[in-house]
Amino acid sequence: MPTHEFKVEMTCSGCSNAVTRILTKKLGEGAKFDVNLDDKSVTIDSDLSMEELKEMLEKSGKAVTYIGVK
Amino acid sequence: MPTHEFKVEMTCSGCSNAVTRILTKKLGEGAKFDVNLDDKSVTIDSDLSMEELKEMLEKSGKAVTYIGVK
Repeated sequence: MPTHEFKVEMTCSGCSNAVTRILTKKLGEGAKFDVNLDDKSVTIDSDLSMEELKEMLEKSGKAVTYIGVK
Repeated sequence: MPTHEFKVEMTCSGCSNAVTRILTKKLGEGAKFDVNLDDKSVTIDSDLSMEELKEMLEKSGKAVTYIGVK
C-alpha cells in the first residue's frame, strides 16, 4: 500500500488534533497515518487516490499540498 | 433570518481561519457570519437548520456545541 505525504498548514495542537479526528472518521479505526505538527506533514498509508486523500484533508479548511509517495 | 451561535474549539488563528474558510466555501460569498477566536464563538445568520450548520462546522474536525439563537 503506498504511503502518501502531504503538507498541511497546521499551527497548533488544536489544528493537528482536528486533522487527526477527520482522518480517523473518514479512514476508519484501523487506518495507518501520521500527523506531525512540527514539520506540518501528514503521511497516510492508503489505496485511495491522492485526489481523494487531498480532498479529505482540505475538509479541515486548511491549505494542503501534495508532496508525493514516500 | 435567525442568528445561530455556536462554540467551536479554536485555539489559534490557524483554527479560526480554517473555520472561516469552510463557512465561506459552504455558505457562499454573501454569507453573514462571525468567527471569534477570543471567546471561541461562531455566529451565523442563516435560514439553514441548526443541524445543518453544526454539521458544516464539524467538518473542520473541531468540537462544536450549539449555544442557541441570539
